[in-house]
Amino acid sequence: AIIFAVVRTHVSVNPAKLKSHRQRWNVRPSEMSKKTLNPIRAIVDGMKLTPNPEKPMIALSIGDPTVFGNLPTDDTVLQAVKEAIDSHKYNGYAPSVGYQKSREAVANFYSCPEAPLEGKDVILTSGCSQAIELAISVLCNPGDNILVPRPGFSLYKTLAVSMGIQVKFYNLLPEKSWEIDLQHLESLIDDKTACLIVNNPSNPCGSVFTKEHQHKILAVASRNCIPILADEIYGDMVFPGCDFQPLAPLSSDVPILSCGGLAKRWLVPGWRMGWILIHDCNYIFGTGIREGLVKLSQRILGPCTVVQGALESILNDTPPEFYQGTISFLKSNSEICFSELSTVPGLNPVMPSGAMYIMVGIEMEHFPDFQNDVEFTERLVTEQSVFCLPATAFEYPNFFRIVVTVPEEMMIEACIRIREFCARHYRPRSQDSHELDQ
Amino acid sequence: AIIFAVVRTHVSVNPAKLKSHRQRWNVRPSEMSKKTLNPIRAIVDGMKLTPNPEKPMIALSIGDPTVFGNLPTDDTVLQAVKEAIDSHKYNGYAPSVGYQKSREAVANFYSCPEAPLEGKDVILTSGCSQAIELAISVLCNPGDNILVPRPGFSLYKTLAVSMGIQVKFYNLLPEKSWEIDLQHLESLIDDKTACLIVNNPSNPCGSVFTKEHQHKILAVASRNCIPILADEIYGDMVFPGCDFQPLAPLSSDVPILSCGGLAKRWLVPGWRMGWILIHDCNYIFGTGIREGLVKLSQRILGPCTVVQGALESILNDTPPEFYQGTISFLKSNSEICFSELSTVPGLNPVMPSGAMYIMVGIEMEHFPDFQNDVEFTERLVTEQSVFCLPATAFEYPNFFRIVVTVPEEMMIEACIRIREFCARHYRPRSQDSHELDQ
Ligand SMILES: Cc1ncc(COP(=O)(O)O)c(C=O)c1O
Ligand SMILES: Cc1ncc(COP(=O)(O)O)c(C=O)c1O
Repeated sequence: AIIFAVVRTHVSVNPAKLKSHRQRWNVRPSEMSKKTLNPIRAIVDGMKLTPNPEKPMIALSIGDPTVFGNLPTDDTVLQAVKEAIDSHKYNGYAPSVGYQKSREAVANFYSCPEAPLEGKDVILTSGCSQAIELAISVLCNPGDNILVPRPGFSLYKTLAVSMGIQVKFYNLLPEKSWEIDLQHLESLIDDKTACLIVNNPSNPCGSVFTKEHQHKILAVASRNCIPILADEIYGDMVFPGCDFQPLAPLSSDVPILSCGGLAKRWLVPGWRMGWILIHDCNYIFGTGIREGLVKLSQRILGPCTVVQGALESILNDTPPEFYQGTISFLKSNSEICFSELSTVPGLNPVMPSGAMYIMVGIEMEHFPDFQNDVEFTERLVTEQSVFCLPATAFEYPNFFRIVVTVPEEMMIEACIRIREFCARHYRPRSQDSHELDQ
Repeated sequence: AIIFAVVRTHVSVNPAKLKSHRQRWNVRPSEMSKKTLNPIRAIVDGMKLTPNPEKPMIALSIGDPTVFGNLPTDDTVLQAVKEAIDSHKYNGYAPSVGYQKSREAVANFYSCPEAPLEGKDVILTSGCSQAIELAISVLCNPGDNILVPRPGFSLYKTLAVSMGIQVKFYNLLPEKSWEIDLQHLESLIDDKTACLIVNNPSNPCGSVFTKEHQHKILAVASRNCIPILADEIYGDMVFPGCDFQPLAPLSSDVPILSCGGLAKRWLVPGWRMGWILIHDCNYIFGTGIREGLVKLSQRILGPCTVVQGALESILNDTPPEFYQGTISFLKSNSEICFSELSTVPGLNPVMPSGAMYIMVGIEMEHFPDFQNDVEFTERLVTEQSVFCLPATAFEYPNFFRIVVTVPEEMMIEACIRIREFCARHYRPRSQDSHELDQ
């Protein structure tokens, strides 16, 4: 980080001294820190976000379900941590991969006959973010590449680029409920491909893959011998009638690091409790990847012990009604939003099946006032005080993402304002523009 | 992590296909994970640690003050977290560098007129370990080197080596209460030196630097324009009569990243709450290092929010008696251990002034039964069921480290057994060995 700067001088200098002696201060941030880029911050910080003073701001941009207070976690969850504190048993260091008892609790919760898990198959991490960081770190070397969904959660690229790993985006198909374009996916694979990231249910799409589609994804990975990082942080957050199928039980050979955590389903993202489930039915990871994960976990020594101490109770004692309540709220809000925006000329929302997001396509040719999704969403703030993330933040221009965790009235009001905004700026395809095309 | 393996085949193969298609599974842990080496684990795992079945095991090796239950944290600390939970305000995401209010609480706690701190100067991290990781990550590029104390805490090397940063060890002088050999330190500096790590009070030495010595350290850094990472996790854990002086208030130019946390002084290491205090009185870090730290913090999004929510109360409301109680216990145990072992022929304990450790020199020439400190401590387990860490784990052979947080009776019993062990194996310098020398 320090660049050696020779100060020109008129007296003769002992070169041995020069070599061992920096002449002036020059402390610079490392390349790695400079390469750790958060595209959401980069885009949002570049936007002029001045709300209309006559309308209260509605933020549909924040992927934090707790901000409006309408989706509290369950009392069982809070009680479990308070009991962990009162026990006085969880103040010391845990093993860097987590307490054995807590790892077993996670293993039991996710184990199934087709993909059995034991405590040793679980690594507890500081949020799903660190789970993803460790999984990428253990599978990839600088110069390798990873396959990442587009649109997709931006952290994959942020982490990979900072580590000198190349990112190759595979397309999701909005017209097929955001299924993976499998041909495109397979065409990207080369001998430097170290990992395929599959995010299901998806941020930002809210899509949930069928079992059949997941079998096809596994077939691509299997044919090409590529391990999978399955980001399943929204696992089981799917609407009634839909079915979440974790990837690992469908795999007969492909080794999978499944990343998850308490953040979304238990509505406590700030607690930073995540995990990696190591699925390796065919012993392809062997001991190497497991030991690598253990070593990497020793860098910062695992997540907060009082939350670890509460894990068993959180997983086993939270009543089913809590999960159902969250999901039916998300579904209802999604339906409101989808049905409202479906009838707005120029917008194409894609109905989600889970998670907490809706992607909305913008027919940019009908909005000549705006260059792109960033300008569109910027002006939506200026005029209507509604903020949605432009999907350029997810490498997917001409869409924006709506978070459906806001209170219902807010969602309704936001949709009314979006409709008003679009009505004002919508231009039917005109004769003029046709002529220009020729 | 994947090595391309060509399968030899007798049919002709389309090379285009070969290029894009890995033929067999070969998933290997990354270089970085393999380079993340924990020397304590490496050494301890290589030791044959079978205690004497007739004596109960006494572990003087574990740097966790909570394991024996004799040093509980204060009730204020526990209460503060329970209140944070009950407030329902700390379940969502905090900013990745921490809540502003919590950062301000840390700033206020450590601010002084000579080195004022504001909220913006504080980055909250997942333990002091992550503070150290971020500080090294932002200051150093691969190919740079850092200056690290010997003996010293092993994490510095573990992290640096994994990032491709070279480690240069500077000597501490046991005969001068473990002060830094400043000439040796300065001789190591070259134009690739990106950071000087100063650990005060010290693990494993328990030493505390005087103000004068710290001025001299700063002079070396200043002359050579090297920023400092001050690991002050044991700050204020010094015995009465001794004075802990943080480094930053003494600096008139050298920029300092001071790393600390709740682990030691508040006796809750498992909670993983740490921080970096950015001291940059001369604007040498400028905005670059600050922004670099913010970017790096976005990788895993900061420490657990309920602990963050409790920070203000933990720092401000914990009664002084709590700290005093811990310190007088540590001092008393240190004195017992020191005075016991001082009279054991062949051992040279160095009296600490703070932290929770004593280093004990072994006059290896008087213990011909053992090759080195690792064998010495291994046999101490086999014969006496007392385990001390061989200081080879701290790059300092022929010493071992004792943790003084164990209950007093255990400390006394351990010293008796160590005396017995040494008496059995001690050989006065004999005529024979003199003859062999010639
Ligand atoms: C797809 C996806 N993966 C991972 C994460 C990170 O989860 P955590 O907060 O547990 O680090 C998020 C958070 O929004 C996410 O959307
Ligand atoms: C000198 C030193 N620095 C840092 C740490 C790490 O502290 P934390 O547990 O907060 O990560 C330790 C822990 O033993 C230590 O001895």
